[in-house]
Amino acid sequence: MGNLPKLPRPTEMAHRLLSERIQKGDTVIDATVGNGYDTLFLSNCVGENGCVIGFDLQAVAIEKTRERTGNRPNVILHHSGHETLDNFVAAPVAAITFNLGYLPGGDKYLITGKASTLTALQKSVTLLKAGGLLTVVAYIGHEGGPEEGEAVSDWASSLDQDNFSVARYEFQNQKNSPPFLLAIEKRP
Amino acid sequence: MGNLPKLPRPTEMAHRLLSERIQKGDTVIDATVGNGYDTLFLSNCVGENGCVIGFDLQAVAIEKTRERTGNRPNVILHHSGHETLDNFVAAPVAAITFNLGYLPGGDKYLITGKASTLTALQKSVTLLKAGGLLTVVAYIGHEGGPEEGEAVSDWASSLDQDNFSVARYEFQNQKNSPPFLLAIEKRP
Repeated sequence: MGNLPKLPRPTEMAHRLLSERIQKGDTVIDATVGNGYDTLFLSNCVGENGCVIGFDLQAVAIEKTRERTGNRPNVILHHSGHETLDNFVAAPVAAITFNLGYLPGGDKYLITGKASTLTALQKSVTLLKAGGLLTVVAYIGHEGGPEEGEAVSDWASSLDQDNFSVARYEFQNQKNSPPFLLAIEKRP
Repeated sequence: MGNLPKLPRPTEMAHRLLSERIQKGDTVIDATVGNGYDTLFLSNCVGENGCVIGFDLQAVAIEKTRERTGNRPNVILHHSGHETLDNFVAAPVAAITFNLGYLPGGDKYLITGKASTLTALQKSVTLLKAGGLLTVVAYIGHEGGPEEGEAVSDWASSLDQDNFSVARYEFQNQKNSPPFLLAIEKRP
């Protein structure tokens, strides 16, 4: 009884879906590195011949992620907002991850914003290779969170079903505005 | 590229969540056996020392499920509606599955109904053991489907978050009313 699994949280579900999709040697993007947990996870997924390209607008996030990933050579970090990712990456990538909200442990007023997030997402689906996966975990408990979450959800719903599959996963009986996951697959 | 996985459909996601939860020797319930696919899956999960107790209102479903599971001794089928499950099962069970809608390949006008489904679900969360998992895949593309789906979703949302976790998984950019999955965990 004591070791029964719990239902996966959206972040854990994102990792499950990414880990079955990403192959060793792939190039992937962490659009919002934050504290670097996803960056480290992605670095393990792609292996030493792969590459993780990470972005964050906050210098402290870049610093924490550099610490967490121990300066691995397969991680390249850019101190730049997610909406600039196409300035640094041109070739199609296997996966892209977003965590929307504020930096855990950081300044709650420094949040990802609706407009730049939508720009970044639109650029991301273009950058994604066929068969690639984009995951978005949207935290919506903070001020501005619900608006950003709704805009992202509306944008994802509008993606043409002939070219993209959009799956959504979330807890639905929690009263504290839990995050939701969107997993967007570009059809091969 | 050719072997890349696709995002799991709700039925596949239900199987994933069930298979990590169910242990050999467990007793589980298939509340709506239909064509027997879930029954067979559950029979494999619980193993020869476990037990699957299956229900269906339609004789043809019981027959098809008996064929599909090859009269396995760990499968017990009752030709009776899902709302009667507590007449046949008294002890707590590890998992319960529902597929709501009509029998694929059967009569489209013989559908699970909102009232009996809600009765069956309420009885199910009582029968579930602590740490157990209830999954509901709701097909809503048929007449009466959206109403049943909404009622089930509302019911699940109302479950007390101190005692139950309710996760929801679905495709959200499809125009043909795709099914959704509810995974309901009774907290240990």
